[in-house]
Amino acid sequence: MSKPHSNDTSPSRVDIERAARTIEPFAHRTPVLTCRSLDEMTGGKLFFKCENFQKVGAFKFRGAVNSVFSLPLSAAARGVVTHSSGNHAQAVALAARLRGIPATIVMPETAPRVKIDAVRGYGGRIVFCAPTQAAREENTSQVIAESGAEFIHPYNDSRVIAGQATCAREILGEVPNLDLILTPVGGGGLTSGTALAAHYLSPRTRVIAAEPEGADDARRSFVSGRLLSSENPKTIADGLLTSLGELTFAIIRGYVHDVLTVSEAAIVSALRHVYERMKIVIEPSAAVPFGLLLENKLSAEGRRVGIILSGGNVDLTRLPWRSS
Amino acid sequence: MSKPHSNDTSPSRVDIERAARTIEPFAHRTPVLTCRSLDEMTGGKLFFKCENFQKVGAFKFRGAVNSVFSLPLSAAARGVVTHSSGNHAQAVALAARLRGIPATIVMPETAPRVKIDAVRGYGGRIVFCAPTQAAREENTSQVIAESGAEFIHPYNDSRVIAGQATCAREILGEVPNLDLILTPVGGGGLTSGTALAAHYLSPRTRVIAAEPEGADDARRSFVSGRLLSSENPKTIADGLLTSLGELTFAIIRGYVHDVLTVSEAAIVSALRHVYERMKIVIEPSAAVPFGLLLENKLSAEGRRVGIILSGGNVDLTRLPWRSS
Repeated sequence: MSKPHSNDTSPSRVDIERAARTIEPFAHRTPVLTCRSLDEMTGGKLFFKCENFQKVGAFKFRGAVNSVFSLPLSAAARGVVTHSSGNHAQAVALAARLRGIPATIVMPETAPRVKIDAVRGYGGRIVFCAPTQAAREENTSQVIAESGAEFIHPYNDSRVIAGQATCAREILGEVPNLDLILTPVGGGGLTSGTALAAHYLSPRTRVIAAEPEGADDARRSFVSGRLLSSENPKTIADGLLTSLGELTFAIIRGYVHDVLTVSEAAIVSALRHVYERMKIVIEPSAAVPFGLLLENKLSAEGRRVGIILSGGNVDLTRLPWRSS
Repeated sequence: MSKPHSNDTSPSRVDIERAARTIEPFAHRTPVLTCRSLDEMTGGKLFFKCENFQKVGAFKFRGAVNSVFSLPLSAAARGVVTHSSGNHAQAVALAARLRGIPATIVMPETAPRVKIDAVRGYGGRIVFCAPTQAAREENTSQVIAESGAEFIHPYNDSRVIAGQATCAREILGEVPNLDLILTPVGGGGLTSGTALAAHYLSPRTRVIAAEPEGADDARRSFVSGRLLSSENPKTIADGLLTSLGELTFAIIRGYVHDVLTVSEAAIVSALRHVYERMKIVIEPSAAVPFGLLLENKLSAEGRRVGIILSGGNVDLTRLPWRSS
């Protein structure tokens, strides 16, 4: 039987290269877009890595595919399990379907219908649980005990982090001499993967994590040097409500240059700028890094800045602006 | 002094090639996107030409640049004038700024603030008029009389049509063996340019124009063989309220294979599918051709279908869906 969090070491450069080869047949190499009017607004040269165009609409597909496809045959045959009501759930369900193995997703019974349907659409089996951390873990352990399924944590897992690192690996390979890369930070899988990729492949590029003020555990953990959780986090960037894990925190302490927070107003403004100027659909979490620039928490002036647009799964009926 | 509608002949193949060279330094070669889930939904292989990513957010920039940059020096020095409250207004203003000549835009005094600001942002001078066709023409004639400015009609002009034809020229050059190309039809500049490009460059490709049921002058004109206007057209696809002109009607009669109408419900559904599945922002007019497929007015089954997404300038506070 596999234990949760068994993959608890920081990915090496070789792990990231191997992940790139593993996901290559399945994941999109997403485009890098530029936008002159946003450059003029910020004084920088901005390169947007568009994971909103990734399969399942988010970077999460990278880590899920890397995890599912790096399982040995015997383990793979027993299937995979995770707990998530977000993009990771869909990503694991689709990755498992592509490998032809069963996936069980533990979801709170309060999960929105659209998320449930999406997981089922990818062939995932859903186990509903009470909407608490304890219920979620208990149900996951039970699935593991019954089936021997491999647990794929949404972020605190070396295979997942190596998969997410492939996103930064692509933009660093495509856009030379980036001064900065900005990522949103929730559980820290994307951020730690990005930081490791930059460390290995472009050490001069500084990695900055952007976090909503209303869910600032990563900022507080980074400043205090102790892993702290968010209590009742609240933000429109609903992909970033999660707190860091032990592994992602350790990598972020070691390789991220700063963690900065963004106000809700700046997140909404950033979201709207991306829709209006770039003509693309992103989810609120993906707007947080650009919010840093709009709010002058960080200057792009004269710099080449990579910005990871992490996903595009948004409820279009609830966009945060009203008729004028 | 230039006369309105002086460029009243159908563009030749050479005109279109020349337009391609003229606009090349200024216009984006927009990407062609594909989307597996929309392919599965329609049974076809769909290729979306993304003019929502064009400068000023719409294909109109192509025709405006071709018109402005093909003026002889002496005429150019006197500037250009047009009447429009839509994408053509911004396109002409920016094209004129790029050439360093004055642009006057005659706009109804009822035009939305955001459109007025956009034209001024590109350096265009605005002349306001009463919101009637007569007032618009009278004011335009007066500008021409006073300044000698060259009139650039929004669609019924050979230079404009040759410019719009470069869009189909690009997709035909990039995607071989298209069975169909679908365009939205309003005044007919994009449709007639597309039809001519297909005629010259890929005669086997059928060109179908898609029109809102609520503004069906092109359909009625096409069927009856007489140029008919829309009376009080009404549709969410506000870029398609205009009626065909004499030149665009003649080209459409000669080279378009069919004109089909789309219901408002299908336009809204198509719009939402593009946002949700493709993660890009388009304006309602741009959704009309895909609406044809959703409504089964036309089958994509087993066919390779080019679809021109004509623009992305939409009021995000007025998207046609409500909170669920």
